[in-house]
Amino acid sequence: MADPNGRPDHAFPEAQREGLYRAIFERRDVRAQFRPDPIPSEVLARLLQAAHHAPSVGFMQPWDFLVIDGREVRERVHGIFARENARAAECHTGERGALYRRLKLEGILESPLNLCITCDRSRGGEHVLGRHSIVETDLFSTCLAVQNLWLAARAEGIGVGWVSILDPDELAEVLGLPQDVYPLAYLCLGYVDDFLDRPELARAGWRQRLPLAERVHGNGWGQSLDSPTLSAALETLESRR
Amino acid sequence: MADPNGRPDHAFPEAQREGLYRAIFERRDVRAQFRPDPIPSEVLARLLQAAHHAPSVGFMQPWDFLVIDGREVRERVHGIFARENARAAECHTGERGALYRRLKLEGILESPLNLCITCDRSRGGEHVLGRHSIVETDLFSTCLAVQNLWLAARAEGIGVGWVSILDPDELAEVLGLPQDVYPLAYLCLGYVDDFLDRPELARAGWRQRLPLAERVHGNGWGQSLDSPTLSAALETLESRR
Repeated sequence: MADPNGRPDHAFPEAQREGLYRAIFERRDVRAQFRPDPIPSEVLARLLQAAHHAPSVGFMQPWDFLVIDGREVRERVHGIFARENARAAECHTGERGALYRRLKLEGILESPLNLCITCDRSRGGEHVLGRHSIVETDLFSTCLAVQNLWLAARAEGIGVGWVSILDPDELAEVLGLPQDVYPLAYLCLGYVDDFLDRPELARAGWRQRLPLAERVHGNGWGQSLDSPTLSAALETLESRR
Repeated sequence: MADPNGRPDHAFPEAQREGLYRAIFERRDVRAQFRPDPIPSEVLARLLQAAHHAPSVGFMQPWDFLVIDGREVRERVHGIFARENARAAECHTGERGALYRRLKLEGILESPLNLCITCDRSRGGEHVLGRHSIVETDLFSTCLAVQNLWLAARAEGIGVGWVSILDPDELAEVLGLPQDVYPLAYLCLGYVDDFLDRPELARAGWRQRLPLAERVHGNGWGQSLDSPTLSAALETLESRR
């Protein structure tokens, strides 16, 4: 393809673009639908490689991957979850509290594999290019690796759930992490019976998707868009989902 | 497709999977290759929708999108970059310092569009499901939205560069952000002459990609993998890139 001036257009062919958007729209945070079937090594390797090719500040690549299949480690992590979740549940009372307690929030033991993606905050030394103004950019980079893996997993038919109800210090101790290494994402992975058509929290009535057009501003917060065609395009797209 | 037990396999067809992996491997942090051509509204809307369909803790969707095409705002942001970068450059001396000063680190004014993706730290109220143990999960969620947009942009033939050399307080002031809203990612977007074959910092000799197999651990930090087939699969994959 080329643009009207004859320069190459770097856009992907239709089927490839569709694959990317399909992964984005059909990806789910999976907690309850895991099947026990193991993930073949070739597939897992592709997921890890996808994560490793994420962008990172100063090409720091601060991530490591702990492939956790041992039952004992997973039981200890599940114990951390149970304690933290009991504390979190206390914040929700009445009907909302009852709904909270009905929600399944992790698949640590049912999924065949857990994966911890860490961030080594000292990697690359004291002066990492691009990290001078905002030191947390190493954590942000690691998140980008998580999302690469999450999307690749969806394309491979594998569900991923991010368990965020964990005390990071306790988790670091269970996993034997060095002092500067932060356990950014604790993930459960496995093939699934189904990918739900909508996020589980939306289905359960906990919280709904926000209208996108209301979250888009112009040149400053709260300013309207210069382009009326963008507003119209956003509304058209969202009405199709 | 179905697995050996006749259950549905949710993996994508080959061309769709290829599209996702291609976006992951061919995505670049673009600074120097922007063309001035505007991004059509329909395309920009697709990118924003891709970001909006990222996962978020407690379905919090803490993001907002500021679509910045005004020259004046971009010049002010560029001024913040120039001051921060002068300070950052002082950390690099000798040959390394000379190389740092030769690197082009942003395309704020050359790209046709800047986009700030923010994180509203108060969205969803005090008790967001899943955010009780790790309060930064709202920032992490917003990063996942950034990566969705970055990959979708690649599939559309659009380059994205993340400018992290910015003082967030000054940036928030220029953009008029409310108190609880953090400017997580300041991005430059546009069509490009080329997507480089390797990350710019690798090409420039600043830093190279780390061997993936060395970054993969077993059930605890520094433990070897239970699965020798995974180690072999990782090495095979990496040797192909």
